[in-house]
This record gives sequence, C-alpha cells and structure tokens, in this order.
Amino acid sequence: MDSSLSAMPVQARQARLIEHYQTVRQFSEYLCEPLVTEDYVIQSMPDVSPTKWHLAHTSWFFETFVLTQAVPNYQTLHPQYAYLFNSYYVTLGKRHCRPKRGLISRPTVEETYRYRAYVDQQMLALLIAMDAETFARWEPILDLGIHHEQQHQELMLTDLKHVFSENPLRPAYREFAPSNQQPAAPLRWLSYPEGIVWLGYEGQSFAFDNESPRHRQFVHSFKLASRLVTNGEYLAFIEDAGYARQDLWLSSGWYTREDAGWTAPLYWEQLDGVWQQMTLGGLRPLDLAEPVCHLSYYEADAFARWAGKRLPTEAEWELAAQTVPLDGSYADAGRYHPTALNLDNSTLPQQMFGEVWQWTQSAYSPYPGFQPAAGALGEYNGKFMSGQYVLRGASCATSRSHARLTYRNFFPPDARWQFSGLRLAADGEA
Amino acid sequence: MDSSLSAMPVQARQARLIEHYQTVRQFSEYLCEPLVTEDYVIQSMPDVSPTKWHLAHTSWFFETFVLTQAVPNYQTLHPQYAYLFNSYYVTLGKRHCRPKRGLISRPTVEETYRYRAYVDQQMLALLIAMDAETFARWEPILDLGIHHEQQHQELMLTDLKHVFSENPLRPAYREFAPSNQQPAAPLRWLSYPEGIVWLGYEGQSFAFDNESPRHRQFVHSFKLASRLVTNGEYLAFIEDAGYARQDLWLSSGWYTREDAGWTAPLYWEQLDGVWQQMTLGGLRPLDLAEPVCHLSYYEADAFARWAGKRLPTEAEWELAAQTVPLDGSYADAGRYHPTALNLDNSTLPQQMFGEVWQWTQSAYSPYPGFQPAAGALGEYNGKFMSGQYVLRGASCATSRSHARLTYRNFFPPDARWQFSGLRLAADGEA
Amino acid sequence: MDSSLSAMPVQARQARLIEHYQTVRQFSEYLCEPLVTEDYVIQSMPDVSPTKWHLAHTSWFFETFVLTQAVPNYQTLHPQYAYLFNSYYVTLGKRHCRPKRGLISRPTVEETYRYRAYVDQQMLALLIAMDAETFARWEPILDLGIHHEQQHQELMLTDLKHVFSENPLRPAYREFAPSNQQPAAPLRWLSYPEGIVWLGYEGQSFAFDNESPRHRQFVHSFKLASRLVTNGEYLAFIEDAGYARQDLWLSSGWYTREDAGWTAPLYWEQLDGVWQQMTLGGLRPLDLAEPVCHLSYYEADAFARWAGKRLPTEAEWELAAQTVPLDGSYADAGRYHPTALNLDNSTLPQQMFGEVWQWTQSAYSPYPGFQPAAGALGEYNGKFMSGQYVLRGASCATSRSHARLTYRNFFPPDARWQFSGLRLAADGEA
Amino acid sequence: MDSSLSAMPVQARQARLIEHYQTVRQFSEYLCEPLVTEDYVIQSMPDVSPTKWHLAHTSWFFETFVLTQAVPNYQTLHPQYAYLFNSYYVTLGKRHCRPKRGLISRPTVEETYRYRAYVDQQMLALLIAMDAETFARWEPILDLGIHHEQQHQELMLTDLKHVFSENPLRPAYREFAPSNQQPAAPLRWLSYPEGIVWLGYEGQSFAFDNESPRHRQFVHSFKLASRLVTNGEYLAFIEDAGYARQDLWLSSGWYTREDAGWTAPLYWEQLDGVWQQMTLGGLRPLDLAEPVCHLSYYEADAFARWAGKRLPTEAEWELAAQTVPLDGSYADAGRYHPTALNLDNSTLPQQMFGEVWQWTQSAYSPYPGFQPAAGALGEYNGKFMSGQYVLRGASCATSRSHARLTYRNFFPPDARWQFSGLRLAADGEA
Repeated sequence: MDSSLSAMPVQARQARLIEHYQTVRQFSEYLCEPLVTEDYVIQSMPDVSPTKWHLAHTSWFFETFVLTQAVPNYQTLHPQYAYLFNSYYVTLGKRHCRPKRGLISRPTVEETYRYRAYVDQQMLALLIAMDAETFARWEPILDLGIHHEQQHQELMLTDLKHVFSENPLRPAYREFAPSNQQPAAPLRWLSYPEGIVWLGYEGQSFAFDNESPRHRQFVHSFKLASRLVTNGEYLAFIEDAGYARQDLWLSSGWYTREDAGWTAPLYWEQLDGVWQQMTLGGLRPLDLAEPVCHLSYYEADAFARWAGKRLPTEAEWELAAQTVPLDGSYADAGRYHPTALNLDNSTLPQQMFGEVWQWTQSAYSPYPGFQPAAGALGEYNGKFMSGQYVLRGASCATSRSHARLTYRNFFPPDARWQFSGLRLAADGEA
Repeated sequence: MDSSLSAMPVQARQARLIEHYQTVRQFSEYLCEPLVTEDYVIQSMPDVSPTKWHLAHTSWFFETFVLTQAVPNYQTLHPQYAYLFNSYYVTLGKRHCRPKRGLISRPTVEETYRYRAYVDQQMLALLIAMDAETFARWEPILDLGIHHEQQHQELMLTDLKHVFSENPLRPAYREFAPSNQQPAAPLRWLSYPEGIVWLGYEGQSFAFDNESPRHRQFVHSFKLASRLVTNGEYLAFIEDAGYARQDLWLSSGWYTREDAGWTAPLYWEQLDGVWQQMTLGGLRPLDLAEPVCHLSYYEADAFARWAGKRLPTEAEWELAAQTVPLDGSYADAGRYHPTALNLDNSTLPQQMFGEVWQWTQSAYSPYPGFQPAAGALGEYNGKFMSGQYVLRGASCATSRSHARLTYRNFFPPDARWQFSGLRLAADGEA
Repeated sequence: MDSSLSAMPVQARQARLIEHYQTVRQFSEYLCEPLVTEDYVIQSMPDVSPTKWHLAHTSWFFETFVLTQAVPNYQTLHPQYAYLFNSYYVTLGKRHCRPKRGLISRPTVEETYRYRAYVDQQMLALLIAMDAETFARWEPILDLGIHHEQQHQELMLTDLKHVFSENPLRPAYREFAPSNQQPAAPLRWLSYPEGIVWLGYEGQSFAFDNESPRHRQFVHSFKLASRLVTNGEYLAFIEDAGYARQDLWLSSGWYTREDAGWTAPLYWEQLDGVWQQMTLGGLRPLDLAEPVCHLSYYEADAFARWAGKRLPTEAEWELAAQTVPLDGSYADAGRYHPTALNLDNSTLPQQMFGEVWQWTQSAYSPYPGFQPAAGALGEYNGKFMSGQYVLRGASCATSRSHARLTYRNFFPPDARWQFSGLRLAADGEA
Repeated sequence: MDSSLSAMPVQARQARLIEHYQTVRQFSEYLCEPLVTEDYVIQSMPDVSPTKWHLAHTSWFFETFVLTQAVPNYQTLHPQYAYLFNSYYVTLGKRHCRPKRGLISRPTVEETYRYRAYVDQQMLALLIAMDAETFARWEPILDLGIHHEQQHQELMLTDLKHVFSENPLRPAYREFAPSNQQPAAPLRWLSYPEGIVWLGYEGQSFAFDNESPRHRQFVHSFKLASRLVTNGEYLAFIEDAGYARQDLWLSSGWYTREDAGWTAPLYWEQLDGVWQQMTLGGLRPLDLAEPVCHLSYYEADAFARWAGKRLPTEAEWELAAQTVPLDGSYADAGRYHPTALNLDNSTLPQQMFGEVWQWTQSAYSPYPGFQPAAGALGEYNGKFMSGQYVLRGASCATSRSHARLTYRNFFPPDARWQFSGLRLAADGEA
C-alpha cells in the first residue's frame, strides 16, 4: 500500500493531495452545519477550544507553515491573527493565552469563514501552480497540515459535546439513529506468543514523527480481548462499588477521583434511577452493549484490575492489530457515537479501530532513536512526552482517512472528554 | 417633589409607569444595537455576565415577581428559564452557577429576544388591565423591576467594556466624540460645619430598601473638593511611585495590588511611552482633565493618603449633595465615558452625579433600624452588607432617571470594572 | 483615674513602669511553663505563630523601637534576628515570610530565652539609668511595647489552643477546674435613650492610636442584653437548622460556611451524640450556661438574625459599658475559659469584660480625625482598617491590666480562633 | 551470591537478620545525634516529614505488620499511634493527614524514642524466641521492614536538608570535610551492542516487589557516559541560557520551571556573584567537579537535550551496571554529599552507585507479569506506578547495604529534594 503510493508519479500525488485538501477543509465546515452562531464562541473548560478558534487555527497552520514561506510577499488578512490563532508554538512568538480563547467575540464567525476562504483561495492557487519538484519538497508539510486539520475535526466534535453537556437544556448537536439495545457479543480471548516485534511507522505515506523510527521490542506472550469493554460491564464495576474501593486504583487516580467527585464515566447521569448518557445526539438511555467511553486512564486501569486483567501495552496492541482491517464506526458515518458489537463471527479481534480510543498501559515516551522535526514543527509531538499515556485505535469522531495502524494518540491520565474506552489484556500462559 | 408624586391620582401614576416600563425595556435593547451575535455570549470574568444573560434575567425578574403571581395560570415560555436566569435568590430554588453563565450558547440571542417580547406582551396586557387598587398594590414591585433593569443596563455597559478590553483587537462598542484635551478647572475646597444631619430616603417615590430608614448622624466639620480627581492628578501619584510605597496603602490593598500586578487604573496601557485608555469608544489617548476612573477602593484610598487628604464618608457626601442638582453626564447622552470639568463658575460642588461613582470611606452597613423587604426580595440588598464600601453619585453608564441623592451603590474594595473614581475630603478647621 | 496618673511625678511613673515591664515580661514566660520544647515550634495555620516566635518577636519589638535607638552602639545578639522576628513592619525592611514561621527550628527555645534575657538585661539597665526628661520622652513607646507584649500573650494562648486542637491526642495545656453545669441567669433587656455620645480615648494613660480622637456620635435609642449569649442558646440555633438556612446569613458568610464546612463553633465536636468542646484544659463536655465562643462574625450575625435581634454597634456598646466596672474572668485567674453567669442581681449589663470578645456590627474604620503614629509604628493599627469588624470587651485570655473601656479589637469576619462571642442588641422603642 | 544466601541454614540467617535489625535500627538514631529537639518537629513542605515522624513510623511498621500479628495479645504503647503513624496504607484504616504531620508536638521526641525502644524490645524478644520454621515464614516481611527503615533513613537526611535550607540561618546538620576543588576526570563513552537483555530481580535475597519478575527486553545499541554530569557542566548549561530556551524543555517542564521560578538546581544560591550550595554541612562554595544534584527530571532532560544527548533507559542502565561493583560514596561514610571523580583509570562506567540517584527516561511502569504483594503491603509500590520516572543507582544518603543492581527508585518529574542527578546516554552507531 505504501509502496504503491510512493510509486505514484508526482503529478498524480499532487492531484490527489489537492483533492484531499479540499475534502478535508470542507469537512470542517460540514461539521459546523448544525451550529448557531453562539455555539462557535464557547470554551467550556481550558482543554476545550471554541469551534471558531478551531476553524481559524487550522487555517493559520497553512498560512504560517506554507503560505508565508512559499508565496512571495504573501499578505495576511489581518496582522493580529498570527497572535490569536497560534496554539502552542513557542518558537513562533507570543500567543493568545489558551484559557482565554472563549473571551474573544471578534473576529466573528463570519469573519472566520472569510479567513478560511481567503486561505483556501491562496492555497489552491499555490498548489495548482506548483511544479513537480517544488511540490515534492512541500508535500510532507502539506500532508501534515491536512492531518492536523483532521485532528482538530475530532476535537471540534469532542469540544462541542462538552459545551452542550454544560448546558442544562442538554441540546443535541445532530440527530442520529438510536442504538438497538441488543446484547453484546460474547468476549473471546486471543493468544499471542512471545517474540521480537517490529513496531512503528516506516514508509512513504504520511505519519507523525512520534510513530518513528520503526524499531524492535521484545513482547512476552499475552492474551487480548476480542472486543471493547461495554457499558454493561462497566456498570457492574460501578455497582460492585468500584469507585469506592481504594485497592483497585492507582494512588494519583484515587485522589483525582475524590477531588473531581467521579462516580461514573463523564456524561453519565442518573434520572429517576435510570442511567442516561449525554451524546452528540442529546441525552439518551444507556445501551449496555455499547463500548464504554469517556473514561480516564485511571478508571480504565481500575476497571481492569477489578476484572482481574490489565490494559495492553502499545506493543501488544499494535502486534494484534497488524492483521486487522481498518474497519469501524468513524466520523464519516455521521453517527458520532460508538456502536455495539452484537454479532461476532470472526476469529480476529474486533472494534480495533473507529469506536473509541483505547487506553494502553504505555506511558507516552519517545521510540528508540526518535528525532523531532526541525524548527517550530518539532514542537508538534515531542515536547509532550511526559505525564501522558498512549491510546490506540481511533474513535467514532475520527475520520477514516486519518486512522492508521501505528497512530499514537496521547492524553493525561485524568482526561475524559475524548471518546476514550478500553480493551482488556492478560499475561499469556497463566 | 415626592409629595407631588404621591399626590398624583393612581390612574396618572399607572399611565406614567406603563410609559416608564416601555422606555426602560426599550433602552436595554437600544444598548445592544452595536453588538454582533458573538458579543452577547461572553463572560470575561466571574463578575461579568453575558449581555444575553442580562437581557433574559431582567425579564425573568418581571416573570418571577409579577407575572407568575399576578396572572392566573401564567404559562412560562420555557420551564428551564427560571433555573438559568435566577441570579442570587436562594429562596427561589437552585440556580445556574454564576461563573458558568458564559458556557451557555442556547437559548440563542434570538430566542432571548423572543423571551423578552413574550414577557413584555404579558406585562403590558397585565398593566393595562389592572384596576387602580390592584395597581397600587403592585406599584412598589413594578418600580423595583424597572430600577432593577436600569442597574443591569449599567452592568451591560461595564461588562461589555471588560469583554472588549480582553480582546487583543480592542474593538469599540460605539463611536463617540473624542475629548477636548483642555486643562481641568482649578480645585476649590468647600467647608461644612459640624452638626446632626438627616440621612437616607423617606418619601413616596422609589428607593431601594438599603436607603432607609431616614435617620440622624452626627457629622464633624469637614471640607470637600469641588470636583473629582483627574487623570492628570492620578498620573502624578503614579509618577511619584504611588504603587510602590507601602506606607500609602491599606494592608489588604497592598497585597491585592501585588497579586494582581496593578501599576495603573484598569484599562490604562502605555504604548511606546504614551498612556492610552481603553474606552467603550475603543483605545484612546488619556485626557488629563477627565475624572480618573476604574479605580479600586484601595487605589482611591492610597491616592487620598498620598495627597494628604482622605475619602469622604457617605454622610458627608450626602450632606454636601443635598443642595446640588442631579446634573451630569449620564448614559442617556450616549457618551459612556466621564467628561472633564474645564470651566467652573459655581460655588457648589461639581460633578456630584453622573460621571463616575465616588468611593466613600464608609463600609456598607445597614442604616439604624434597617429592615430588608419580606420574602425573596429581601435578598436584594441586605445580605451583601459585609466586606463592601459605599459609592455615591452615579456614573456615565447610569440612566438619569435612575440616579438619586440617597442612592447607595456598593462594591468590594478590589472591584475596578465599574466607572469608579473619587473626590477628596479633609477634616475641618485643621 | 487618668488625671491621677498624669499627675504622678515622673519618678513615680518610671518606677511603676519598670515594675510593670518586669511583671508583663515574666507573665509571658509563666504562660510557657506547661510547655515541652516541641510545643514552642508549631504553626498550625497561617494566622497562628509558634510560641517561640511570640517570645522572640516581643523582645525584638523592644530591641528595635527602643534599644537600637536609645542605647549608643547597641549590639544585637544576632544579626539575623531583626529579619526573623519582624512581624509586618514593611518600613523596617524585609521580613521572614509569615506562613513560614513554623519551619524554623533554630534559634532553639533555649536560645530564644537567652535572647529574651539579653533584651531584658539591656532594657532594665536602660530604664534604671534614664533621667526623668528622657523617660518622659520614651514613656509612650515603652507603654506600647508592654501592651504589645500583652496582645501577644493573648495570641500565645489562642494559638496554643489551635495547635493542641489539631493534635488527635487532644492534649491539655493546663488543668483548671471543671465548670459547674448550672443554669444561666435569665436575660434582662436594658434600654438606652437616643442622643449624642462621646466615644474614644482621651487622657494621659496608655491607649492605642486607633481609640482616638475622642469624638461625638449620634446614637438612636436601643436595647442591650444583660449578658452574653450562652452555649445553650447557640445550640438551639444549631438544632433549628441555623447552619442550613440561607436567609439567616450574610452572602459572604454563607459561602464561607459552605467552603469551610462549618456546622458548629470552632472546637465543638460531637462524640457519640454528646457535644464536647476542646478547651485549654483539654476536651470537656459542653456547659450550656457558658458564653458561646470561637464564633466568626458571620455566625454571630446569623444567630442574632435567627433570634430576631441584631449585634450592637461599637458606639452602643461603649455607651452601655461606661458605667460598668472592668470586672470579669481574665487570664490572670488562670482559667483560660469563659465562665457562666449563673446568678445576676445587678441592674447593670454583666459580662462586659473579660469572658469573650464581643462582635459588634461596626466595620473597623478610622475615627473622625484619626491620625496614625509617625514612622514604622504608624503601621500598628491604621493599615488594617479594611475588611474587619470591631470586637469589644476583653476575653478570658486577656490580662486585666490590658483591658480598657475604649479598646477596639478587630478581626476579619471569618476568624474563629480567638475567644469571640456575642451579646444581643435591638432597636429601641419598637 | 544469592544462592549462597539461600543456601545458608535458617539459624544462620536468623542470627544474621537479628544483627541486621539492630544495626539498622541503631543507625536511625545515630542519624539523629546532631539534632536538637526542635529539629525533629518540622515539616517544611508536604513531601517532607518531621524526623520524629520517621522514627515513629518505621517502628509502627514493625508493630503493624509483625508484632500485632505474631505476638498473641500484643499491647500497643498508645492506641492512637496506629492512626498517627500510618503513612499511606488505606487498607489499614484512617490515617492522620500527611501535610499535617508538622502540626503535632506530642508525642514528644522523648516519647517517640520510648516508643522505638518498646518496639525494639518486643521485636527482639520475638525474633530470638522464633523457631526456624516460623522465622522462615516471617523472614520476607522482616527483611521488608528493615529495608523500609533504610528508605526512611535516606528521607530523614533529605528532609532535614530541606528543613535546614528553609532556615535563613542556614544551619549545618553535621560537619564534614570540604571538597578538594580539583578538576573532574575526562568523560569517556562506552558502547553497548543491541540484543535481548534480562532485567529485574530473581533470587533468594531481598528485593522490592517492583523489581520482579525477571524478564526480557530488547535493547538497541547505545552509548553511556563513563561518569555523572558535573556541576561545572551544568553551570555551562545555565550560562548558555538553558533555563530560558523553551526548545530544550518538555512542555510540562517548561511551565513547572516558570511557576516555580527555577533558574538553577535546588540549594544553589549566588552570593555576591559566587555560586554557593546548601549542603548537610552548611552553605559551601560550589565544587565544579562534583556530580550535579537536586535536579528534577525536567532539568536533567533539558540538560541532556542541550548537550545533544539523552537520558538512558532503565534497561540500558541496568545492562551497563551488571559488571560494575557496588562501590561509591554512601551514607555509611558520613559525608552526605556526592564526591567528585577526579581520577579515572577504569574501563568500566564509574559512579554508578552511591553518589546521586540517576534519572532515567523510563516512566515507572510495572514489569511484564508484575504482581503486587497481597494485603496492605501490596500498597507499597504498585499503586504509585503513574506519573513518575525511574531513578537508578543509589546516593550519598543511601546505606550501602540498601543498594542493589535492580533497585528501582521513582519520583515525580518535578521532585528535586532527593540527591538526584544524571548520566548521559546516546544512540549507538551514530
């Protein structure tokens, strides 16, 4: 697959990228169709950014890393936008303070769209006019800009979910079909022998710098669950006093739970004794067969301990996923919520991609020989390699063209607003 | 004056109130004319409320305290609005958390206006249909609702000023004429003899409960400055290291100044060595003759000590103001910024009303014999009588029909986002 | 009394002061007799200082304000002590950070006593050698130093009480006789007519600068309770859900109560359903007739509102106290706990002095014409005149020679670790 | 080595353990010899415990895990000690709050020693009376108790260092010889080939549960520095603006540095332009050849990036250390400060043990197949496996008999009060 891509003539790759650029840019705007102007403005917690900011920042990325460098005498639309829409690139100068993104009513939503249109017009003029050699030189950063926008599309969905959940009116982002409330398929255990595995990305397609270099790890024999943990299984943990048994929790998790008052996953609420779940389709009854999501690492880890199992390492996960197709419920399907596995006739692990991100027990560390990119883009991944855990797979808020076997997502152990769930693992030959 | 009003026939008073109701309600919407939708949503700090919230809350007030009680089977527009738009009336049940008012995109701005229109329609139907006796019974609460809305109009202006000041683009709320940059009139000192004075409100017009009962205080002889302290005078304090001399400050003020990093009044900024001031008309050069404003009590008090003077008590201020007309720059004039006193041919104190609220040295305490109103409206004023200081006069953001000789405004000593300034006083015969 | 004192010849006054100096200095050490070395070191909250620090700081006061100025070439015992034992005199240079006073094991307790002895030896040599004219010049500051030490003696007791209360072993500071558990004397109401009263200190004896100048206030007619509020009366407030009724509380008090989790006065605890109270004599059963103490202003105010009464102003309190002798339970008696009034044959108000400090409703403000002392000693009182309330009387931890009719004690409304209670007042002729 | 131990007859092992118990218990008291009573009481930050607490807690450990279970009808000295001296064993019931350990003056130092003596007497009676079979059953927990006390001995030293450093008098804990201020030996680079290595503990001697099970890892080829990074090398980083260059830092490190105001390692201070270092021997001039210590992970990592190198993984470190003797400067030598390597004739890595703990880039995670101990002792290590990094080696505050090749020490990345430094590593074949 990779080899076929790198074997493509440059012109074909250029045409393909132009189309991809347009598709992805339009998808950001498609995701905004259900919104009213007021929805674009709000930052409901420091981790959340206003939709308006996401739309502008992803444009700023192309302006900063491509247009201002590739277009002679490039004119920005507004001199202050570079300050307002830089996220965390310290190398590029001062930035507007992250927790204050929700205090900015201007530029308006309309002006933000005008900014996007301006950047798109400039980008397309540039992309079409590029000769093959120039394109080949710019291709990696263009690819990065597109995947960067796809990351923000996922954040737009999870951030909007958080914004709507803070509203006592519990508004729905978009209507989608209710779940079928059927039982989950039984869980199977798949066994893997010990050995040296190759891990990480190597090839000609796009991957983030943190997925490289491809390297070896020794993996002991292990078992992996055939599917994700369900709401029903997690409810059994709750009903067995899982949130009150200190022996199940990591020490820092126990205190986080206490300070934050956690007694269930984020977005669960009990109304008159019945469990409901805030979704992007509004408040809905809990489907016990659906993958549990909006868990912190601490909760995933405590559940696994309660179940007498453990979380997989990222090496184990990637090894098991190598033979699995990238199928799953992605954002493309317009459901924005994980889907239950009711039927399972396979011998492979199921739900590896595109339902919920799966916490691994692996701290987010550099791969042996890792080198961040040069310049400001070196800040993309490397500087966050402390205090976070790797999540694998992809979620119902990820675009399918953004998912990848070697993808390393990462969040701090107390983060819950992503579509994050878990799959169980166990030591082999026990 | 009061007696003439109470002497009016009930029908005349009723017609007058209906007109006043309409004028005031429309003025709230007039103040929103310069806004785009995004501007209505933002809460830039806990003290600030989104404009949208002010528009809804003032309507909720009439709905809660009048319509639901006076209209049989009154239908609210939305069952959750009572929860969302209650400010601090604990007696009325749970409220949406104040610092979270900026997290609510829905109801939208349009829905909020629809809510206002609904309440207005119901209110006018009720008011017109009322017989004289019923009207006489409802009159005090109707008056309170109107003055309540006028208080929120002032907050809408000061809150929007804060919102716009947080935006690096420094947008203007509304254009108004620049100041004339002429010198300030010289300061005169007016002397008052010792004696027992009558203080507080008594009469048939409207006043808040905290202005009563009318009572006596003994006042020692004192002197009062003929005009407000100017930007130029305050600048001399800054340039004399006023913010670095601990001996000028109250202890809690000194630490507040340090923690908050104060080195000038709120909204002052130095660009290339030139002092600018953020105003509701955008960033403007400082006019040295204008009254200084956006001062905390701590700064006003430190300035007075630096000047070898002191702040007046509220008894002194009210005594001096008793012979002064209610003239001044009010919000009605559409300037939203205090005006310099360049010429002064009077023998009376000037600028007593309608430029900036004037800090007094009087802690906000109940008048002897004070009784809060019964029921939920008893929470209006009394429960805040701790840790705050009284400000007198009125500001350029106050409506003229809202100002009153006996008006007791109050804020904590570290509040700076109101149009708050000062007038000097001194002991008599020293 | 005052006139007789000022009429005393200087020599007699000098001899008297030397004796007073010695008595007071020794009393500080007497208060430490029950302590083990470890007890001297601990700072259980920022408001509390280690006993060791009190012993040193009161010596530093004499060293700084007397010895270094009156003794030529005065040699301090240690060059760093001036830094370590300055409390809040910014004018005198940098200080050791207040919340870090409990982190200093050296100088040791023994070295601290050596420091005291050194200062005493130098002071007595100085005092004895002074000629009459010099003494007259130094007399006010010497008096201040003595009263300053008496203030710290009261703090030593209240701070040690807090330290011991934090210890799960609940150690006793000193044994004293148990209370008699008899009923409280009935409460009488005393009436006072309206009029102008003289308030504040004027005379030749010692008083703090904040008690001056003597001045006039107009007081409306009022009633005052004959005795303090008892534990039994306060318990009725608790049992009537006083801590759960928002309408009884000031707004800032309500939130303080919630954040701090108050459900009873400080040091009350319920063991197996029986109310106990931590005292300086250890944990003891609650005596219902004793004056309630360790109340914040917020609690005192809420109780008064619940009782349909109010707190007195400081003018009312001082007017009522003018005819009352300074009798009461003071620290001199060695009981360190307020005493119940079981029998009351008087027509005067009782328990005005020496049981618990009595919260007044008066914010701590400067008297008309107040001028702080010049130099560093001007920081003694004036800079704290914001955000605090005046308490009157004296407590069981005050020395009798330190009490005074015009004494203005002051604490923030949330302070509870002093022996602070209340007496009810009401408007007259209602 | 291990095999010889396990081959020892039980009686010999029992005699050996009794001797070890006594030696270690006495060493705790030896470390307290320089202290005055006041020094035992202080907790200078939440991570620090008072010496008094360490002495009691280590005794509580034997009482709780041995005496109360092995001695029929065991009588504790005081019923509250179990509450006061439990550290973090949630399973064992409520504990005194950790940050409040410095608020407890009683039990006194003398009573604490009495408690130790009581526990020792009971322990020795028990140990001597045990038959071989019983001893064999208790041996692991006895070993754990002894190593637990050795861990607390290291903490006593680092905690006292912090306590003394907070005192402006900068007292010395114990005098020791000054450093020789000679140049450091040149740094050599040692190369290691790729391959599968065995890691972790397996054998019959004591090791903590987190060092097991012994397992395999794949290690890529790498290079390791022959000695620790010196003060001089670290000073070059400071002088090259290392604390001001964001590109050298992890993101969370950068903000920690900013919030905490770090500009040099903990305990460095510049007096009149000369770098000094607070040591357990008091304030001393910086020796440029000494290993740098009191670094956070963030600083160690930033230094390595500045040097164009990286930190080793724990697998790399353990592989390199396998052929190195356990020599080094330990607490036994009574110097309590790392020693410079001035001369280096070896071909092996130097300073692997006993100078400073060496930060690795490995997050503290369970080894494959890790199982915590059963019961309360399962809380010893496992529940801390989140948000921390592994340090290897041992320090000048560690006892030699406590050091071990497979020892995994761990601290959060912002911890600086341990003797923590670093050794550089690099990828192989570069």
